[in-house]
Amino acid sequence: MLAIMARLKLAPILNSGARIGPGKVTLLESVRANGSISAAACAMGMDYKRAWILVDSLNRAFTMPVVERSAGGTGGGGASLTAFGEELLGRYRRLEAAAEELAADDIGTLEHQAMPDAGLKI
Amino acid sequence: MLAIMARLKLAPILNSGARIGPGKVTLLESVRANGSISAAACAMGMDYKRAWILVDSLNRAFTMPVVERSAGGTGGGGASLTAFGEELLGRYRRLEAAAEELAADDIGTLEHQAMPDAGLKI
Repeated sequence: MLAIMARLKLAPILNSGARIGPGKVTLLESVRANGSISAAACAMGMDYKRAWILVDSLNRAFTMPVVERSAGGTGGGGASLTAFGEELLGRYRRLEAAAEELAADDIGTLEHQAMPDAGLKI
Repeated sequence: MLAIMARLKLAPILNSGARIGPGKVTLLESVRANGSISAAACAMGMDYKRAWILVDSLNRAFTMPVVERSAGGTGGGGASLTAFGEELLGRYRRLEAAAEELAADDIGTLEHQAMPDAGLKI
């Protein structure tokens, strides 16, 4: 039997109101892969200001930072994930995978009742 | 031991792009409770046009409708959930509860590392 890979948008919301959703988490992965906030934003087709706001909101949501900026060498300053940033990222992706497994049967059933037509992304 | 009630925003996304998120599901519950789309929207502080668009997008996302409108009696036409609408609602809420249980430990740990400050709802 083929495993159905369910797509599930997941966003834990903390008591403070801080929300950890797929956009921020993907940005963290992009920072890790690209070594700076500006390169991360560029790789995602996101504007720098929005990327900076998202990183800043994550940094301020916790008692320790998620992303740290390093002083510039030849190529200007970079950014990388802190140990806590890695932990946050890992928790989110593991939780997402577990939730998608949990949801696979339900989503599979709904797919059978779904109209194939796209363009209804409301 | 107290169960931690995790808050988790959950939105299954079908292959068509149709998204079933908490806003639409809460609107379905409001339609059921209030008997019409306009009363449902009003009860949620949502404008009627947006409520109509959300209901329409759900109705068009599946091979059968989720909400059906009844011909008006004395008080004008109403709306109610179809059997499939009830099924969709039930699946979503059961899935949400199971995912929140799944996420409780992770969210509990993150709460311990969170700044209490709200106002960071980005």
